[in-house]
Amino acid sequence: MSASDPAIVLVRPQLGENIGKAARAMLNFGLTDLRLVAPRDGWPNPDAGPAASGADIVLANARVFGSVADSVADCGFVYAATVRKRGLTKEIVGPEKAATDTRARPGRTAVLFGPERSGLETDDVACAQAILTVPVNPAFASLNLAQAVVLFAYEWSKAGVGEAATFDNYEGAAPQEELEGFIAQLFSGLDTAGYFARIKDRAPASRRMLRNMLTRPGFSANEVRTLRGVIRALTTRRV
Amino acid sequence: MSASDPAIVLVRPQLGENIGKAARAMLNFGLTDLRLVAPRDGWPNPDAGPAASGADIVLANARVFGSVADSVADCGFVYAATVRKRGLTKEIVGPEKAATDTRARPGRTAVLFGPERSGLETDDVACAQAILTVPVNPAFASLNLAQAVVLFAYEWSKAGVGEAATFDNYEGAAPQEELEGFIAQLFSGLDTAGYFARIKDRAPASRRMLRNMLTRPGFSANEVRTLRGVIRALTTRRV
Repeated sequence: MSASDPAIVLVRPQLGENIGKAARAMLNFGLTDLRLVAPRDGWPNPDAGPAASGADIVLANARVFGSVADSVADCGFVYAATVRKRGLTKEIVGPEKAATDTRARPGRTAVLFGPERSGLETDDVACAQAILTVPVNPAFASLNLAQAVVLFAYEWSKAGVGEAATFDNYEGAAPQEELEGFIAQLFSGLDTAGYFARIKDRAPASRRMLRNMLTRPGFSANEVRTLRGVIRALTTRRV
Repeated sequence: MSASDPAIVLVRPQLGENIGKAARAMLNFGLTDLRLVAPRDGWPNPDAGPAASGADIVLANARVFGSVADSVADCGFVYAATVRKRGLTKEIVGPEKAATDTRARPGRTAVLFGPERSGLETDDVACAQAILTVPVNPAFASLNLAQAVVLFAYEWSKAGVGEAATFDNYEGAAPQEELEGFIAQLFSGLDTAGYFARIKDRAPASRRMLRNMLTRPGFSANEVRTLRGVIRALTTRRV
């Protein structure tokens, strides 16, 4: 597993069988970094192994996290794989563009895939910089989890054959945990200022919108540090 | 279903569940022409419907054939999806090239997929003009049937978005039954001439090699007629 291999994150997966199938799909195209967020039936799951058809190394190395934010803490860019519109302003890309951009970008990329039945929640999607959508038949959009994983993995593998484009003068997005630290600092400052108390019922929507706006640009570590300095300056009382 | 939508041909599929999954994979990308060659458990199969997750129209319209040749009789170009080398001299393409060429080519294209456990037999592959291979991890090549179908269907759908390249001055390959008619005529002529009798044990391999050589070029209907005339001329005794 090289430093830039993308992570496949299954968010609250339901069936062990589908975790195994996703692992099999990944290894066919050389991906091995599988992460599980709160798998419904715990982990390890005895149904995963048989469905992986030999991709045991992927299952053995899979890591379990309690939250989406924790699962992508070391990642500089996060895609949310979803077919539904979420009312969030984010770039929407197909598997090919996601894969070529993943190759070109410094740092690690993660792709979030939601539970089999319901897909990602809006709060999960808000943690991502961009949305990954497979352009399917509008009259029959019914890709299963492993098929969605296989399409991204296939494009990622294909993108490695040619020479990838690169971003000029771009140091890459900050690790997600640095961005989260900044957002927490911001929210704390707003709480102290009574901002969320004043808007009452609209506070959850407001937090989500802020998180989304701040996640989308893919701020660099340097930019996040600057923003933290800004917030610190605004929230610290002068003596 | 437009005249140029490719046909997905499952050759001797074993499990009804996998036929249903293939149908589901197809319809996600707008493909509806499913053909089954000698399905192991007959047809219809009660396990197919639940696995199709609503792609019932594809199953309802599926047609069953007794042989690969019959299943592609109306097709001008046939791909054999296989990961294994077959010792046959044929073009090998990935899903993207197969899909864009399918869009560009006049006439109907078929893609043959083999049984789940064993894949296509060499005789099946000999019926195709070209081999479709997904470039997978050499250390773990384990795509399942529906995943192989979904990758071709995805690329076919994607290729429809942009403007496809076209072949100049190419009327398209003859329907496969016209080519088969020519091959049968040739073999009959060779039989009459004692050709196969003389080479004895090597006759089956010789037939296969000939079929392969003659299938690969994608002769047009006009070219096949010309070839038939040639064979007719060579095999008819002058009075």
